[in-house]
Amino acid sequence: MRALTLLTDFGTTDYYVGAVKGTVLRLAGPAVQLVDLSHDLPPGDVEGAAGLLAAAAPTFPEGTVHLAVVDPGVGSARRILAARAGGHLFVAPDNGLLTPFLAPAFPDETRGASGPVEVRHVTRDELFLGGPGATFHGRDQFAPVAAALARGEPLSALGPVIDDPVLLTLPHPTREPAEDKQGGHRLRGRVVRVDRFGNLVTDLPAAWVGPPETLRGPHGPRVEVGEHATDLWVAHYAELPDGAAGALIGSLGTVELSLEGRSLAALWGTARGAVVRIRTGPTSPPG
Amino acid sequence: MRALTLLTDFGTTDYYVGAVKGTVLRLAGPAVQLVDLSHDLPPGDVEGAAGLLAAAAPTFPEGTVHLAVVDPGVGSARRILAARAGGHLFVAPDNGLLTPFLAPAFPDETRGASGPVEVRHVTRDELFLGGPGATFHGRDQFAPVAAALARGEPLSALGPVIDDPVLLTLPHPTREPAEDKQGGHRLRGRVVRVDRFGNLVTDLPAAWVGPPETLRGPHGPRVEVGEHATDLWVAHYAELPDGAAGALIGSLGTVELSLEGRSLAALWGTARGAVVRIRTGPTSPPG
Amino acid sequence: MRALTLLTDFGTTDYYVGAVKGTVLRLAGPAVQLVDLSHDLPPGDVEGAAGLLAAAAPTFPEGTVHLAVVDPGVGSARRILAARAGGHLFVAPDNGLLTPFLAPAFPDETRGASGPVEVRHVTRDELFLGGPGATFHGRDQFAPVAAALARGEPLSALGPVIDDPVLLTLPHPTREPAEDKQGGHRLRGRVVRVDRFGNLVTDLPAAWVGPPETLRGPHGPRVEVGEHATDLWVAHYAELPDGAAGALIGSLGTVELSLEGRSLAALWGTARGAVVRIRTGPTSPPG
Repeated sequence: MRALTLLTDFGTTDYYVGAVKGTVLRLAGPAVQLVDLSHDLPPGDVEGAAGLLAAAAPTFPEGTVHLAVVDPGVGSARRILAARAGGHLFVAPDNGLLTPFLAPAFPDETRGASGPVEVRHVTRDELFLGGPGATFHGRDQFAPVAAALARGEPLSALGPVIDDPVLLTLPHPTREPAEDKQGGHRLRGRVVRVDRFGNLVTDLPAAWVGPPETLRGPHGPRVEVGEHATDLWVAHYAELPDGAAGALIGSLGTVELSLEGRSLAALWGTARGAVVRIRTGPTSPPG
Repeated sequence: MRALTLLTDFGTTDYYVGAVKGTVLRLAGPAVQLVDLSHDLPPGDVEGAAGLLAAAAPTFPEGTVHLAVVDPGVGSARRILAARAGGHLFVAPDNGLLTPFLAPAFPDETRGASGPVEVRHVTRDELFLGGPGATFHGRDQFAPVAAALARGEPLSALGPVIDDPVLLTLPHPTREPAEDKQGGHRLRGRVVRVDRFGNLVTDLPAAWVGPPETLRGPHGPRVEVGEHATDLWVAHYAELPDGAAGALIGSLGTVELSLEGRSLAALWGTARGAVVRIRTGPTSPPG
Repeated sequence: MRALTLLTDFGTTDYYVGAVKGTVLRLAGPAVQLVDLSHDLPPGDVEGAAGLLAAAAPTFPEGTVHLAVVDPGVGSARRILAARAGGHLFVAPDNGLLTPFLAPAFPDETRGASGPVEVRHVTRDELFLGGPGATFHGRDQFAPVAAALARGEPLSALGPVIDDPVLLTLPHPTREPAEDKQGGHRLRGRVVRVDRFGNLVTDLPAAWVGPPETLRGPHGPRVEVGEHATDLWVAHYAELPDGAAGALIGSLGTVELSLEGRSLAALWGTARGAVVRIRTGPTSPPG
């Protein structure tokens, strides 16, 4: 039995998710364990889908098939990709959704460099179903391709290897020495996710800020988001005093900002993409 | 292993869905694959449930059991139905929810005509659980019946065949020749679904409008919804220019109206049930 | 194949639920049937989680593993519990979430009394994963413990038996003889749940009100919630006249208040915790 995850922006009020699942089970047989990652992404949020998949997929057993359909270009000439990365199999539109898995193999600077990742353009169109319209490739094209992988067909049977998948070009966090007597570094990153609890997840690596054991107390590195700031660092949410915002190391190993019991995003009015600045002290790790 | 789908209006914040699933697994054994179609239908929306089930169920493998509980009459004398149609098995309240599967066999005009569909009134009440209250037949009556089918009991063991299931009497789309020099036809249908993306799905068959390859460009058949209209036809969503509404053939083979990147339903203020009129040109297919 | 249920307040827009599921499947093998109870509890709603689990878990087959993570104290020193009760296995934070299953064995008055329930403090920390941060024990600690139970490891291998689990101290409903000529009793309870339909579920046992067959009609025991009241009793929702509120025996065997077709909670402005008073007549069952 193989697991097959589903990640879409289809919502849960329409027939769309059901039709994808039904098609997978019909074509792959019932010995597939379907696992919902999420269907509640904002419509067309390719970047959000990429982040969610990057965080969730590696927890699954090797050989899991991950079917991700956030596809504003459905019906157009955009390609359908099937890929292997880190022992996992992926099926997704060629719109950057798989960036976290492909980017290490295809960095911006070296397009065409091959790596341990295998990406194929799915051209075996006899797999595709002739459903009406050209609006629901989730059911008519992605599901049959995922089903083929779930029943054990080799990736190589789906189409040719490509070396130019679309990659999202997301701003990278930066780190530079502070040019003053105090020493330390200036970090600049972004809020990459606001979670359900209103926590602000950033892309600033914990390792840039300092050893975890030093990151506790009221006078840690100052974190600024717009006009708001905190220099309180805690190990986990429950350490936060009532009503106080604080910073901590989150579940993906990056800096996260939180407010005990309430949404910091709501309190600060912060959304994904907001710039986050941190000034580390002289004890921060060397560059 | 058999798939068993679940479609309810129970929402996902209560214990209701969990209790239905637990009861099915307890009574049918763990070799059943539970698949959620949706639990987020508006409370009591039998028509919406019928449409969703009609669109999703046929994608599943034959032999799948579909358990659908949108049941405003729970506890009353309304019957519980078990049915076979198109190789699929269904369990639902007798309130019209199964209309799309039963209507071909039981058209309004010929009630009592038998067809390839088998509908039974579930009277084998020793299957029912004696749970407290009379408010949760999903757990106490529907789940045990679905579990019986999932473990392979024959439909005939559940109760007598009936020929008078409740059927929804939905307005049918109409098509009549235009009485003017220009020729063509006047079509009149309805918005049958507003999806998560704000697309307006109608009941007007694509075949009434013309061959798909002719349906592209800015001067196609004019589609009117209330005071709004478009004569732009595209093959898929991504072809729509920014900010422009357009028509296309949707995933169920009917005319659909869409707006790139935003909700057309919100822009036009359109809800399910809205009348849709199309004037086809002389090149439209003959009646 | 064993069922493993998941109950969290993680929502369905983040990667959290996916990461818990992936970790369970990776560590327990694919022959586990994952079943979502709910992920849409209000953040931190331990009492709501306890109620939902109490209502849903018993419907599952014996041997099912129930993983419940509503854990405002994540990362702190609060313990992780693994328990067996009623033939079911549970993994949850030690914050009262398992109260409905443990309270019979550990009533407030007799802490330390042993019972048919086995509760262990999970101290076998080599099971825990060294994920980054201390904010996501669902993935890093709870999931591996649940996976261990799912693959058949004995409860005794997880840590020592404890006799002091945290228990919620919820107000109990009360019942006392009415001190007047009319006789009967005065009952006082609470709204313990407002369901998706706006029904008010109370903790007042049906047996305190009278035999179900006597509880029908317009002049039943008067039920008061704040300034609102009804003495209409029905057997099920569909019996309610349009626009009228009424009382009935709900799916957990307690008194429930409902309004046909609309939300009574919205109409009356009632939330969980509201006090509910019932005056029973002289025909009510003896104390």
